[in-house]
Amino acid sequence: MAYLIVTYDIGENRVNKVRKTLKKYFMWVQNSVFEGDITEGKLEKCKRELLKIIKEDADSIYFYSLENRLNYRKTVLGIEKELTGNIL
Amino acid sequence: MAYLIVTYDIGENRVNKVRKTLKKYFMWVQNSVFEGDITEGKLEKCKRELLKIIKEDADSIYFYSLENRLNYRKTVLGIEKELTGNIL
Repeated sequence: MAYLIVTYDIGENRVNKVRKTLKKYFMWVQNSVFEGDITEGKLEKCKRELLKIIKEDADSIYFYSLENRLNYRKTVLGIEKELTGNIL
Repeated sequence: MAYLIVTYDIGENRVNKVRKTLKKYFMWVQNSVFEGDITEGKLEKCKRELLKIIKEDADSIYFYSLENRLNYRKTVLGIEKELTGNIL
């Protein structure tokens, strides 16, 4: 189990599919950012699904894996999205 | 000194100014993501500059502060931007 921050930069034609896939595994916290706890197995499943959607020479998804969510401190300027109740 | 991941979601009219400000303090690693080591003093200076640009009821900047860059593991699907030589 690890806590992940996931950021992405995806071509317009594919971005909705990528969001829907990430939404199954993580919480949507900003336009291009998801967060959440995930097991190694589920993370591998998520990556396999994403690889079927993205163009690897044009798109980009970063997975920042922290051992747990206590390993970072988050501060916000401006509005902060709720960690629950995200509607896609 | 801390290692930060910075993500932002900014209105179109203000996004270039936000990018230019973040570029002074961090490395640009993805469309909406910067990373880098920064001192507490410089971080406060950066935040003060950003607060003059953003609309706090419309824009959003997240600062994920890690004690050091060894506290996370980054994996990438697709393309990865170089950590140096970013041209704005």
